[in-house]
Amino acid sequence: MIGACGAVGSTVALGIASLHKRLIATTGLVTELPPFQDVELVDPGSIVVGGHEVRTNTFCDTLAELHTRSDLFRPSVIHECASHLDRMQANIKAGTLCGSDATNEKLADRSGLTVERCPAEAVERLTADIVDFRRNHQLDRVVVVNVASSEPCPQEQAAHAQFAKLQEALAKPASTVLPPSSIYALAAIEARCPYVNFTPSFGVNPPAIQERAQQLGVPFMGNDGKTGETLLKSVIAPMFAMRNLSVLSWIGHNILGNRDGAALQDPQIRASKLRAKNKAISQVVNDSTTTHVSIEYAPSLDDRKVAWDFIHFEGFLGTKMSLQFTWQGCDSALAAPLIIDLVRLAAVYDQSGRGGAMRHLSCFFKDPIGVEDPNLFAQWEMLVNHVQSDVRAPAVEPA
Amino acid sequence: MIGACGAVGSTVALGIASLHKRLIATTGLVTELPPFQDVELVDPGSIVVGGHEVRTNTFCDTLAELHTRSDLFRPSVIHECASHLDRMQANIKAGTLCGSDATNEKLADRSGLTVERCPAEAVERLTADIVDFRRNHQLDRVVVVNVASSEPCPQEQAAHAQFAKLQEALAKPASTVLPPSSIYALAAIEARCPYVNFTPSFGVNPPAIQERAQQLGVPFMGNDGKTGETLLKSVIAPMFAMRNLSVLSWIGHNILGNRDGAALQDPQIRASKLRAKNKAISQVVNDSTTTHVSIEYAPSLDDRKVAWDFIHFEGFLGTKMSLQFTWQGCDSALAAPLIIDLVRLAAVYDQSGRGGAMRHLSCFFKDPIGVEDPNLFAQWEMLVNHVQSDVRAPAVEPA
Amino acid sequence: MIGACGAVGSTVALGIASLHKRLIATTGLVTELPPFQDVELVDPGSIVVGGHEVRTNTFCDTLAELHTRSDLFRPSVIHECASHLDRMQANIKAGTLCGSDATNEKLADRSGLTVERCPAEAVERLTADIVDFRRNHQLDRVVVVNVASSEPCPQEQAAHAQFAKLQEALAKPASTVLPPSSIYALAAIEARCPYVNFTPSFGVNPPAIQERAQQLGVPFMGNDGKTGETLLKSVIAPMFAMRNLSVLSWIGHNILGNRDGAALQDPQIRASKLRAKNKAISQVVNDSTTTHVSIEYAPSLDDRKVAWDFIHFEGFLGTKMSLQFTWQGCDSALAAPLIIDLVRLAAVYDQSGRGGAMRHLSCFFKDPIGVEDPNLFAQWEMLVNHVQSDVRAPAVEPA
Amino acid sequence: MIGACGAVGSTVALGIASLHKRLIATTGLVTELPPFQDVELVDPGSIVVGGHEVRTNTFCDTLAELHTRSDLFRPSVIHECASHLDRMQANIKAGTLCGSDATNEKLADRSGLTVERCPAEAVERLTADIVDFRRNHQLDRVVVVNVASSEPCPQEQAAHAQFAKLQEALAKPASTVLPPSSIYALAAIEARCPYVNFTPSFGVNPPAIQERAQQLGVPFMGNDGKTGETLLKSVIAPMFAMRNLSVLSWIGHNILGNRDGAALQDPQIRASKLRAKNKAISQVVNDSTTTHVSIEYAPSLDDRKVAWDFIHFEGFLGTKMSLQFTWQGCDSALAAPLIIDLVRLAAVYDQSGRGGAMRHLSCFFKDPIGVEDPNLFAQWEMLVNHVQSDVRAPAVEPA
Repeated sequence: MIGACGAVGSTVALGIASLHKRLIATTGLVTELPPFQDVELVDPGSIVVGGHEVRTNTFCDTLAELHTRSDLFRPSVIHECASHLDRMQANIKAGTLCGSDATNEKLADRSGLTVERCPAEAVERLTADIVDFRRNHQLDRVVVVNVASSEPCPQEQAAHAQFAKLQEALAKPASTVLPPSSIYALAAIEARCPYVNFTPSFGVNPPAIQERAQQLGVPFMGNDGKTGETLLKSVIAPMFAMRNLSVLSWIGHNILGNRDGAALQDPQIRASKLRAKNKAISQVVNDSTTTHVSIEYAPSLDDRKVAWDFIHFEGFLGTKMSLQFTWQGCDSALAAPLIIDLVRLAAVYDQSGRGGAMRHLSCFFKDPIGVEDPNLFAQWEMLVNHVQSDVRAPAVEPA
Repeated sequence: MIGACGAVGSTVALGIASLHKRLIATTGLVTELPPFQDVELVDPGSIVVGGHEVRTNTFCDTLAELHTRSDLFRPSVIHECASHLDRMQANIKAGTLCGSDATNEKLADRSGLTVERCPAEAVERLTADIVDFRRNHQLDRVVVVNVASSEPCPQEQAAHAQFAKLQEALAKPASTVLPPSSIYALAAIEARCPYVNFTPSFGVNPPAIQERAQQLGVPFMGNDGKTGETLLKSVIAPMFAMRNLSVLSWIGHNILGNRDGAALQDPQIRASKLRAKNKAISQVVNDSTTTHVSIEYAPSLDDRKVAWDFIHFEGFLGTKMSLQFTWQGCDSALAAPLIIDLVRLAAVYDQSGRGGAMRHLSCFFKDPIGVEDPNLFAQWEMLVNHVQSDVRAPAVEPA
Repeated sequence: MIGACGAVGSTVALGIASLHKRLIATTGLVTELPPFQDVELVDPGSIVVGGHEVRTNTFCDTLAELHTRSDLFRPSVIHECASHLDRMQANIKAGTLCGSDATNEKLADRSGLTVERCPAEAVERLTADIVDFRRNHQLDRVVVVNVASSEPCPQEQAAHAQFAKLQEALAKPASTVLPPSSIYALAAIEARCPYVNFTPSFGVNPPAIQERAQQLGVPFMGNDGKTGETLLKSVIAPMFAMRNLSVLSWIGHNILGNRDGAALQDPQIRASKLRAKNKAISQVVNDSTTTHVSIEYAPSLDDRKVAWDFIHFEGFLGTKMSLQFTWQGCDSALAAPLIIDLVRLAAVYDQSGRGGAMRHLSCFFKDPIGVEDPNLFAQWEMLVNHVQSDVRAPAVEPA
Repeated sequence: MIGACGAVGSTVALGIASLHKRLIATTGLVTELPPFQDVELVDPGSIVVGGHEVRTNTFCDTLAELHTRSDLFRPSVIHECASHLDRMQANIKAGTLCGSDATNEKLADRSGLTVERCPAEAVERLTADIVDFRRNHQLDRVVVVNVASSEPCPQEQAAHAQFAKLQEALAKPASTVLPPSSIYALAAIEARCPYVNFTPSFGVNPPAIQERAQQLGVPFMGNDGKTGETLLKSVIAPMFAMRNLSVLSWIGHNILGNRDGAALQDPQIRASKLRAKNKAISQVVNDSTTTHVSIEYAPSLDDRKVAWDFIHFEGFLGTKMSLQFTWQGCDSALAAPLIIDLVRLAAVYDQSGRGGAMRHLSCFFKDPIGVEDPNLFAQWEMLVNHVQSDVRAPAVEPA
């Protein structure tokens, strides 16, 4: 995991440790639902956690914070998993600040962080870390998942279009051609590891990086996990569409108190987030629809997000009606099981030897690469069809 | 329409008249969505409206009331449709009180209402009315839709199980073997007209009546139109299921101000409504889930219903979260276009010569006959698959 | 405290212990606000806790339950207060089941509970317990507060009207003339201790008991602490009144998961609660206003109550508008500091030697004895005026 | 009225005409409540309406728009008042654009609008208009109320401090020393008419203008009518204060669809509005409280505003809880009766011959001049005390 010891990463670590010790139920794990029961997925408790981090906080620090501030997790569970978490912690290496923006750089308080001379050097170092991790733990495969704070959306650049050009640009000293999320993505690909971007950051978006992934037969997917308000939007919008009701205004208001909320105070970072959030309702939005999404930072909420959406719509004979909802979710607890799902599903796909965008995973993302339809049900069907035809067959063969 | 001049029926009448004069858009009409564009459906503006009614109110009375009390419809639209509505009004015959409950009987203020000697006589009279209507207007086919006030759910009786036995029971003087909704259903079937029950009343539920429909090759469907809160529940519940989130409590609270709200004050009528409403979330409810649905009557709301649902759920690592929504809908405006859709779809199905339950119409109902899956998306797919394979084929042949 | 080891009582005990050790701020304590700073109130940390209980649970059991189920209290605070809580526990005596209803009797699982031969015997025993407690701890005064589960509202009886008659009735074997809350109230009064009823139970309501309190110069007050939804109603209703806006419908829906919620499943107990809840809005309710309050039990919420209110109102020129609110409160945490406030204020009043209804405490109650005005602000002014004129003066003199 | 033919002004006009014809109840009129029954206030139906306007729309145009788009007012009421409204319309003169901002200037589509050579000239012309109006209609007194669109808050200038300096500045050609709202305020004062600012615009804020009002003995008050969300905040904030609960975050989100909403899209205009909105909760906000108020423009809502507030608070023992409310109000219908109230109360005060800030009217304003306490109840008491002591006495004397 990139940004491994943040709220989401630490919850993933605790979840895996708890599943290993059979302390918790599999609630929240999509891959434990009936359609997946015949797919040979890795046992979630047996996943080995490693990653990169630019902050000092450990898994245990973050979990203690989440418990105290947001009333998450039973203390007994944290306690019983402590030594397992310590072992995972030993696998966490220093991340890179190469290409980082000012907001995220300010959060990076880990000692011994270096900015590499050029992005190519950073890619090389991170690739080596991943390869070492795989070798040291004798793993069949490693899936790299980005769970770091959101980055601002970078400017388009010519070098993003072609891998040959990108390579040149990466070798230039102090180049900012790629933000960190894309440097990590490239490192994962160079190490032949499936890459999943659970954030709205740039990640594997540059065509040049996707070209490289295709070359090396590495699968990838993103962007931005669909965990809360947007998940709900992706079922409510199709409902309006299926009833031919006309959405006049859809106004969403998010209040966040965690580190992600703090980073989203930066207008450029917020812009990249909002773009992803709006995709969910594209189906019911036309030129005359008013849409707004706002995000406010309220530290008192900590990891307990509140989102209020107001939907004004018109029905038969010009009748105006409305729907409003308040979602009170906990991002870490919603995201963590989906990350374990994605690791399981990316691993089984990788096993089949194919690279490229894992479009069948679209239901996990706000802005799925290569998939236009935001309807959760259509996306779900893509996934179920995939695992029941495509994956299941090769899964039976010796890998 | 049965209960033709109530809020829903009158809105249907106004809608058809407005569509005839091209005064309004087709917003709210499902059958105007892309999947239906190649299906040869009747033009909604050309539908001829007729029906039965036990109250004195005319279409225009009810529409004026809805406009004044609930701010529905532009006055100019009502005005331009007035003479069309008057012509429709001439097709409305006195309904029957045969088998009626006390609450609904009290609302029946139409002069000249008679209680027939026995239900068989009522069936005969109503059948004759329908047949006359078809002949007088030289119609290809008539679809009978129940939009009357909800009835209490009747006791099970042996005569409900077999048509032969039912016939005997119907002939007994003053028999209460069937409530009015079922008497109308039988009359429709005897007249070879497709029957649709848009209410939670008994309608075509008795196996004996379904047996007769099969015998005569008459299609039917119900029960209880899925217009508002339950519609929303039928997309939100699958969302929780698809994320393997565990619903702890689902509490719904409905506030209604219209005649339906008044009838639902009767505990027995409410019981039949609540049963239908709970089906929508059966997928996410287990023995340890708390569910409650309450319905309160608040006359000040008139036709503007308010429903609040609170959903308490548990995610990964035992984290409790919640969702609440407030739906502020107008039942008449939500129901009316669906009734026009059902008439169009029942007519095209009837054309193909088949009888029995029109299961492909499940997405329109809270408690669809013969369909267990409450997931709106699965139901929608059934409908789209049906019209794109089954219906389209015969539709091309000369009818 | 009566029902001392329930959720509210245990939170009071923890609060006092935490204030004693200066582990927490005084947030939630009304008597720590500026208007009270010159009043000589007892230091909250120095209050000695005692009481009666019919259940087996100890303070520590209940606090552990509240922590685990409802995420209340920091574990470190509970830990540091453990020995103090144990000392308080030693002061808890077996309560009485004399006059108890079936619902509450079922919850009474403490060993060694006896039903006294007649209510008079119960009063005598409880009085002796209170007197012993005062002597053993060398206390200046004891305030008795009822925080037990709600009881059904008893039938009116002639013996309630006059103390002489009541005494006779109490001496009859197996008499049910008074429910337990009133037996405790009488015991408190006989022990010359101020009595406060924080529940909607009968308590000090019978005129006969108030007559006795006047005779002995004992102050008393109740009923039913105004902690959450009703508190809010008592400021919103006056707002509508001050703007001459006409409330058409006020519908409230409460969802509770704690023991109180379980008891309120009993229709008779619920009735006594609802009566108190409706008083708060009497100012804006007239014959044409629709009001409903419903209470549902959802165990998953534990001590985290959710209340939704929908208020439909009419303004100028017949314009209909609405307000809705969702209150997500924790009853124990809201009630506990108010009980400490009431103890402090009842003690300082008792010191002045006056008996009777402490009407100046009306702002703490849903249904304040002897006060009609439900407006929180008017009630607040009564309190502030009282402490700044009446109480302050005698407080300076030697008591 | 300044901006007389906007939504609020037109609703005032319709209200007065309807009261004149006794077509409506006095719901929404504060001055019809019991505390005012002995005060000799002008009969609301007898008020003569006049004003200035920079847009082409007439009262009837605006009322028709409000009816069609926002379902306001019964058509029969508009119809019966038509000729009265036409007579009022004849009293509306062209307003001034002198000192106007770009956003408001764009809305000014009335033909024949001139920008005077200097503000002094504008003041002179407007004063003459007011004096003419008073003379032509033989009125005892005229109260000038600003109900125009909000303006941006102007930069502080030295000339605002002293009337002598202001006079110099006003005479300079093309001076922008004052925005229109202040030019109208000065014109009112020069005409010896009480001035009330119902908007957050600058109005009578400059000390130089207040100095002039004092000189001439003219009463004034403002700013920004307290009609909806802020009204509610001004009773809920004191509730938290009275219970010593600590507000952690108070986040408000307003959605507007009317002309005011459009103007508030301008960041500078929004800033002046937000400042006023935040005052209401100053009592419960400290350095560690997070507050945000956002305002979004959604044309589909027209005059039907929706405001959602989320309040996160902490109680005893560090327990976090929350309150959220949704206010669905109609600004015109809420504002209009308050304007009639202010006219009545300003007139009776003016009668007593005193000038200066009418602080006793603070309960009508978001940001009352000269009053710090935002508590609605404290403000209400100021008003009631005033009318029951101060006003009533002189009101009995011959005026």
